[in-house]
Amino acid sequence: MAMESFNKRLLDEIKIKNSHLCIGLDINPEGLNNPNSSLEELKSHTFKVIDATRDLAVAFKPNLAFFERWGSNGFKWLEETMDYIGPETITIGDAKRGDIGNTAKQYAMSLFDHFGFDSITLSPYLGYDSIGPFVLQSNKGVFLLCRTSNSSAKDVQDLRLSSNQLLFEQIARLAVKWNKNDNIGLVVGATMPEEITRVRNIAHNLPMLIPGIGAQGGDLKKSMEYGNQNGIAIINISRGISFAGDLSEIAIRDSAKQFLEQMREYS
Amino acid sequence: MAMESFNKRLLDEIKIKNSHLCIGLDINPEGLNNPNSSLEELKSHTFKVIDATRDLAVAFKPNLAFFERWGSNGFKWLEETMDYIGPETITIGDAKRGDIGNTAKQYAMSLFDHFGFDSITLSPYLGYDSIGPFVLQSNKGVFLLCRTSNSSAKDVQDLRLSSNQLLFEQIARLAVKWNKNDNIGLVVGATMPEEITRVRNIAHNLPMLIPGIGAQGGDLKKSMEYGNQNGIAIINISRGISFAGDLSEIAIRDSAKQFLEQMREYS
Repeated sequence: MAMESFNKRLLDEIKIKNSHLCIGLDINPEGLNNPNSSLEELKSHTFKVIDATRDLAVAFKPNLAFFERWGSNGFKWLEETMDYIGPETITIGDAKRGDIGNTAKQYAMSLFDHFGFDSITLSPYLGYDSIGPFVLQSNKGVFLLCRTSNSSAKDVQDLRLSSNQLLFEQIARLAVKWNKNDNIGLVVGATMPEEITRVRNIAHNLPMLIPGIGAQGGDLKKSMEYGNQNGIAIINISRGISFAGDLSEIAIRDSAKQFLEQMREYS
Repeated sequence: MAMESFNKRLLDEIKIKNSHLCIGLDINPEGLNNPNSSLEELKSHTFKVIDATRDLAVAFKPNLAFFERWGSNGFKWLEETMDYIGPETITIGDAKRGDIGNTAKQYAMSLFDHFGFDSITLSPYLGYDSIGPFVLQSNKGVFLLCRTSNSSAKDVQDLRLSSNQLLFEQIARLAVKWNKNDNIGLVVGATMPEEITRVRNIAHNLPMLIPGIGAQGGDLKKSMEYGNQNGIAIINISRGISFAGDLSEIAIRDSAKQFLEQMREYS
């Protein structure tokens, strides 16, 4: 049986679930408004978010920093979170790794083999060596940072090259070139809708992972319209869902439903 | 008592120990020539390397990928490794993180507060937001990736900007600008000695962390000479020391001594 490529699986799942909603798992005591939250409480809230939204989300995106903050106990919580999500829903390990080939291999063993993520986020600064070990298996995917949602992204990503392109546009070109196994996508922030179009014009067929809606103030309508033109986009929401209302399962589900309905309206 | 800045502490330690030697802790079963190595064996080899070289090394640089490969048990091994090194010798967490501000804060809590590293490596692609949370305390340091030692570094880092500089030169300029607390250094690979000089001409006073000697074939003499002109440089050796000879404490110490003697000769 031929293995389905990651990008194909993502497209199929979007259609089956009629959902472009990616839910970021960035759970911390600050979000729970309780600086003394125990790891047990963080874990049980994580499971609550998963239970409340499993049928609505096309993907879950655990953010590794929020687990690493607690060291080995945090990684145990991540292992349990991956088990709890299970194999049905697509997982994106938001790790933003980027290292030389021999080290990249160890990270691939960590993220794909040990934790079992279906895909991860990577930084492009070290070039192809740092991507190669993650794209060998076509059923495992990579979302390469292209134009991020933070305000200082411009410090580096908007630098103008001698070719007259901006750096992030060249990264999009490289991603297209490196996408031999139909398993590379791009991260483009919702805070920069014009940049989504610029990237789309270069990378017609690459899926986009669009963060920056909610706390960061990105534009959902434009993100959906521009991101899904000539390709597919999934939209990440983290705090806007995980920490919705009174933090109950009902409040979390209601918020996820509202975002999903808006996305369906704009698609 | 005013806290000593990280860059000042590094300079002092180099003088006290008369050593520019940084020892990378990248321990895996492949290096031990035993694909079935247990985590206990990996840990005991790590401790052996530390015991054999503690008085010779100005810094130890655990590479997080090699620990993360084993999930929560790997992070436990890293916690024990940090305890074993103790507070006397400078530690560099080779993590190459780089994320938006709120996530960067969680990584800082992980690497500085939980694991207790004195300094870490960071990727510049997301701009100042991704550096800020790590440079607030002047006694904690950052080595920013500038020109790395891998062959595909050129894919991105050597892109020519409209200003006619190369991208890595602009990163060096940004690092100088961001170095308000005397705690930022740069990573420049030993495989590119000319690039070391180009970076030195921009960033006169920033410490350099120079990897790429040994397995990667970098030039030790030029790295020492160019890196230590108008500034200080530490030279990282990983596999060439950790996996020296018959893997005994004596072989490891002999290899570290040889590298250190060569460095002293070139300084």
